[in-house]
Amino acid sequence: MSIEINVRDFGAKPDRSDATLAVLSALAACRASVDAVLVFPKGDYHFYPETAHEMYAAISNNSHGLKRCALPLLGLNGLTVKGNGSRLVMHGIMMGVIISASSDVTIEDISIDWEHPFYAQGDVVDASEKHFDMKIPSAFPYAIKKDVLVFPGEGCEFPLTHFLEFDPATRAVAYMALDNAGSPWHIERRAEALAGGAVRIFADMKTPPKKNNVMVLRTGTRHSPGIFIDESRDVRFTNVTVNHCGGMGFIGQNTENITLSHCSVTPSGDRMFSASADATHFVYCRGMIRIENCLFENQLDDPGNVHGIYGRLDERIDEKTALVRLVHHEQVGINIAKAGERMRFVSNRTLLPFAESTVTGVRILNVDRMLVTFDALPQFSPGDVIENMNRVPDLIITGTTARRNRARGFLITTAGKVIVENNTLSTPGSALKISGDANSWYESGAVSDVTIRNNKFIDCNYGVWGRAVIDIDPEMPEFSDKCYHRNIRIEQNLFRTFDTGLVYARSVDGLSFTGNIMEKTVSYKPRERMKQALTAEHCANVNSDR
Amino acid sequence: MSIEINVRDFGAKPDRSDATLAVLSALAACRASVDAVLVFPKGDYHFYPETAHEMYAAISNNSHGLKRCALPLLGLNGLTVKGNGSRLVMHGIMMGVIISASSDVTIEDISIDWEHPFYAQGDVVDASEKHFDMKIPSAFPYAIKKDVLVFPGEGCEFPLTHFLEFDPATRAVAYMALDNAGSPWHIERRAEALAGGAVRIFADMKTPPKKNNVMVLRTGTRHSPGIFIDESRDVRFTNVTVNHCGGMGFIGQNTENITLSHCSVTPSGDRMFSASADATHFVYCRGMIRIENCLFENQLDDPGNVHGIYGRLDERIDEKTALVRLVHHEQVGINIAKAGERMRFVSNRTLLPFAESTVTGVRILNVDRMLVTFDALPQFSPGDVIENMNRVPDLIITGTTARRNRARGFLITTAGKVIVENNTLSTPGSALKISGDANSWYESGAVSDVTIRNNKFIDCNYGVWGRAVIDIDPEMPEFSDKCYHRNIRIEQNLFRTFDTGLVYARSVDGLSFTGNIMEKTVSYKPRERMKQALTAEHCANVNSDR
Repeated sequence: MSIEINVRDFGAKPDRSDATLAVLSALAACRASVDAVLVFPKGDYHFYPETAHEMYAAISNNSHGLKRCALPLLGLNGLTVKGNGSRLVMHGIMMGVIISASSDVTIEDISIDWEHPFYAQGDVVDASEKHFDMKIPSAFPYAIKKDVLVFPGEGCEFPLTHFLEFDPATRAVAYMALDNAGSPWHIERRAEALAGGAVRIFADMKTPPKKNNVMVLRTGTRHSPGIFIDESRDVRFTNVTVNHCGGMGFIGQNTENITLSHCSVTPSGDRMFSASADATHFVYCRGMIRIENCLFENQLDDPGNVHGIYGRLDERIDEKTALVRLVHHEQVGINIAKAGERMRFVSNRTLLPFAESTVTGVRILNVDRMLVTFDALPQFSPGDVIENMNRVPDLIITGTTARRNRARGFLITTAGKVIVENNTLSTPGSALKISGDANSWYESGAVSDVTIRNNKFIDCNYGVWGRAVIDIDPEMPEFSDKCYHRNIRIEQNLFRTFDTGLVYARSVDGLSFTGNIMEKTVSYKPRERMKQALTAEHCANVNSDR
Repeated sequence: MSIEINVRDFGAKPDRSDATLAVLSALAACRASVDAVLVFPKGDYHFYPETAHEMYAAISNNSHGLKRCALPLLGLNGLTVKGNGSRLVMHGIMMGVIISASSDVTIEDISIDWEHPFYAQGDVVDASEKHFDMKIPSAFPYAIKKDVLVFPGEGCEFPLTHFLEFDPATRAVAYMALDNAGSPWHIERRAEALAGGAVRIFADMKTPPKKNNVMVLRTGTRHSPGIFIDESRDVRFTNVTVNHCGGMGFIGQNTENITLSHCSVTPSGDRMFSASADATHFVYCRGMIRIENCLFENQLDDPGNVHGIYGRLDERIDEKTALVRLVHHEQVGINIAKAGERMRFVSNRTLLPFAESTVTGVRILNVDRMLVTFDALPQFSPGDVIENMNRVPDLIITGTTARRNRARGFLITTAGKVIVENNTLSTPGSALKISGDANSWYESGAVSDVTIRNNKFIDCNYGVWGRAVIDIDPEMPEFSDKCYHRNIRIEQNLFRTFDTGLVYARSVDGLSFTGNIMEKTVSYKPRERMKQALTAEHCANVNSDR
């Protein structure tokens, strides 16, 4: 029988006082019982980093390091968090929720936001190719220090390093707007206060913003993701909203079975932005990833990405042991192999597998290098990669809307069974991207069974992040006669689009494109990057009714 | 019976190749036997961070974080490392040795150095109150980027942030030279390349350097200490030398019994600097700290410091629980209390104890805050502090020379039995400092039995870091009629000095100054900060034969 633990009984108050210690005490009480229910009576609860639980966390595609967290659910088996529509409001550099080494965890009816966001925005009042001027609403306090626009937050201060133009009419990224309007990434830029309260930013821009558009002002790195799920099993989110965070909204890794039902990543108040990076992201999960009836909008990166990690083979140490490296700086510290797991050896030139072997031992040296011992270690060239074949989730994305974000829609690279259906996708890049590479992002792996059906693709690709509405574009330096991806069926979808390209496919064996409807719109000027609806290169067994 | 494990049998070579993995394998072999001896046949062994063991370490008075290390001695009981005069040469940001959770560890006949030091130096060729020009020897590669002098190292690059003037005639800090010649700390300074290969640094200086003096150019923080000892027992170093490191030379904490015999911290080659911070430092150790027949010179901070940590009482959480904070940023993450340990409650106003209690539980919240539960928690004012009375080492410093460093000599704050005898100390600040404070450095605790005898104090206090040759100067905002320190005997020492003040004492009950000899020198211009040899303020039971 489950027992209800009410956070108010432990001193949490729905006012601006710090609920952090009270919630930690309530969680300790949950730990003492089986199948506990942690209850937040409806209200706004505020969390500050000063007394928050802290732990080292390596969070894939975010940053690694010591992280403080409002709701640390660690080593718990059987816990339900009932939010009753409460808002958990964070202050400063910290995370909302960490679920680690736990099983059977459910979170319901709760939203997570930051009182003071890490990002800001300004209304463009003038622009040229060399500058733009904006008025920054009072909700986003700023200062100009040593000619740099900085945003003083709670216990932190970040300079403006990058920005992206939004159209207030659509609340989406402006047509064909480039990151930083085409000026360099991640640099501090000269700023000047103008008479009348405007701020001028100097930048060499290829796509200068339009007057009256909104510039989303980006700062910092992915230090404070919203919800992190690690090394767990059977985790469910129902009606959970992330309004903002300094990183990804939901980031799960090495976890079996994650469900998001009626969840959202969406801005609060007048903000044009929600999460500062992807809405959802799942790395080396297992079992089933289920995303149903969700809404992901205005986050500053993709609504979702499901992938594994290619570990690079740097050196043979002995007959059975290889020195393996995690190359991408946002993958460091992640466990990618355990004794007993089956690894596939893949050429980084062709992306094709050339051997498989079972891990007999792993010695972690540091966050980016480990010694992995195999029952049989094949010959390899330094640069070839390994991929864990035991961490291959199935994926269902259904009833979900994704729009108004930066970049693409759902990125799918898993060899499990994938169904994407009944979604409405309107993304500035390709709505679906099935890629894979072993030389830059190191995101594995090849798909083997993907069904994309009954979705509505609405005016996708109005930005700079795609080729077609669906991009299948693994990146291999050399093509061979074998394909990387297999069995992708695209059927009965509605493509409502101002542009030409519906599907670009590379290195797929078994591509079917049937029963789809295309409706032409005039929403944007056609980009015509593709000359026809379907392009298939280096593919086999292509079946199209167009 | 002990077994010898030779690192060369595991592939370590005395050349510039990376010995890191080979030494890790040799250490694994040591782990398999009782009382193993890890042998380095005489030679230079090089260590690079790429494959080095990494772990989170909170290193008192240095920095906390993930640290890579050449020689990680973790959880070992009974190990001798025989260096046979070998040099372990580090490359880049990493540490030399970490000894943690181990017992009965001996390291002999080895030296630790960095191929490419974190600091640099330049020969002053011209100076005014607004600038100095220097020629930087080719051993210290530099660049000027965006008007800042930077030092590209191995996998790192640090800007010049602070500097200190040395006199090549004495190889010591120049007479009365201020840190950064009196200009601000830790800022980037404008630099300019001059014709003829000199570099000009702009700074508003109170003590501009003299032509032909050497400026030691300081960068970065204490990221890479040399040897770290944590949570261990019975650790001995014999004939171990640290030539350089980016932090302290030897830093031990929460460890019982540490001996340094015939150890050195001393520069290699033509470097004017050795360690970038203290030569030795011991925090909350127990048993005996023994420093015998050692040489500490040219490090950029004190030769030694033995102290505890005052934890600040921030808030009463319940009848028995207090929220305790580690305030100093270089004390975060350190364990200061365990269940069963006896804590003393101390006023931060008077520094005097007002209660004692036993810890019944500790919950670490994050690196700077914890909940500590006591069997009885007295009334306290926020800001009052606690001090662990179970971590109070005895201390012997004997036969040791300390000179040419930045700042003071040995800093001693431990309630254990302390003997300082037969040493030769010639430091730019006070040669011995017995202080304590609960408001800035939070270094505990009061001494109760100190003997200082038969030492030679040679021309100490030629710099800006002292009042008298021996400074006893606990810092309390309010004096009461009780004293902080007790029982300090200063006897039969030779004070050879150009200056007036021999002992300044504050808040000592039982100070004796007898049988000492003073010899006047003309080595430097007298500072005359003190008007007489002995000054005692707020003291009781003072006995002096002068």
